[in-house]
Amino acid sequence: MLKKEWDYVNKILKKIKNIRNLLQDESMYVIIVYDVNVSRVNKIKSFLRKHLNWVQNSVFEGEVTKAEFERIKDGILRIIDEDEDSVIIYQFPLNFMPKREILGLEKNPIDDII
Amino acid sequence: MLKKEWDYVNKILKKIKNIRNLLQDESMYVIIVYDVNVSRVNKIKSFLRKHLNWVQNSVFEGEVTKAEFERIKDGILRIIDEDEDSVIIYQFPLNFMPKREILGLEKNPIDDII
Repeated sequence: MLKKEWDYVNKILKKIKNIRNLLQDESMYVIIVYDVNVSRVNKIKSFLRKHLNWVQNSVFEGEVTKAEFERIKDGILRIIDEDEDSVIIYQFPLNFMPKREILGLEKNPIDDII
Repeated sequence: MLKKEWDYVNKILKKIKNIRNLLQDESMYVIIVYDVNVSRVNKIKSFLRKHLNWVQNSVFEGEVTKAEFERIKDGILRIIDEDEDSVIIYQFPLNFMPKREILGLEKNPIDDII
């Protein structure tokens, strides 16, 4: 096979691989709550805003892929002081979403975001 | 049947009904996050402490029955100002618990509580 055909085949294989990775990188739903020193609140809030939906003071939610999830955790670890700050991540598969109920004000309605 | 026997049968039926209610009152797991006016923080915190585990600033978790769950919601609604405060309740069946991950400090380890 000529080099030109081989390059073409390689390109196709690469595309198939990317699509397969995307498919395998199943998404999940995460809720992140944080309790951090006031000096770091703005930094963690603006970081998480890039990836997830702000729903309430110190609470973010959203659908992410595995790869995004790892990037979010790395980003949080770069911001917080692990001896002082606390971040809890609840993670579930998309088909086991929790029932979600609001009492009082809904500060940032999720359905307006998605 | 004499009145005495009838009373006895009634008592047994009542017991069976209570046990059945208890069994049917499937438990669930809830995560409650709140964002309330500072004047109401202590009140909602001490109320929720009676029913759930404090895990982080403004975050409570725990297993509750349906009946307890209704009492918790009623109690929250008696405390908050619905035009100003926001409470989000995530609720899921016990057999679909989320994966839970802590970055940084675990302020109140759940396994020490349960």
